Amino acid sequence: MYVIAVYDINEKRVNKILKLMRQYLHWQQRSVFEGELSEAKIGELMSKCNRIIKDEDTIKFYMFESVKYFRCEILGSEVRDDGLRNFI
Amino acid sequence: MYVIAVYDINEKRVNKILKLMRQYLHWQQRSVFEGELSEAKIGELMSKCNRIIKDEDTIKFYMFESVKYFRCEILGSEVRDDGLRNFI
Repeated sequence: MYVIAVYDINEKRVNKILKLMRQYLHWQQRSVFEGELSEAKIGELMSKCNRIIKDEDTIKFYMFESVKYFRCEILGSEVRDDGLRNFI
Repeated sequence: MYVIAVYDINEKRVNKILKLMRQYLHWQQRSVFEGELSEAKIGELMSKCNRIIKDEDTIKFYMFESVKYFRCEILGSEVRDDGLRNFI
């Protein structure tokens, strides 16, 4: 599955989420990670996120069977981690 | 097309972008808007964004033919503008 994760996390916990996300996905821009993950790994990541976040935090995961189901356009500065830009 | 827009904008310009996005899409969480837009309206929105943003800003638009191509899971607090939660 291809995953886009967007988070809004209190600054007290944001570094923990950043560190965790980096183990599974690629950083795209502030508060956004993307990457290919198996269903099992998605479940594992969500479970670990749930152990860190509190009620006031939000993480939204968009999941796709394939990157072919969407196209992407960037305005302004380019993404700095370009490991996934081949499909943009 | 279904659009997910994620932005990272300098605070000097963020209110202008917020105001603009609200005219086209639905606010989801900090820095994230979503909604259904025609190709023409997407072009119009991008063009207006380009007139506001500077080099240091980034707006990423993910576009889909249909919401059926992705599923969505939210951890933590629910989205507050729930106009689009019927497909989550």
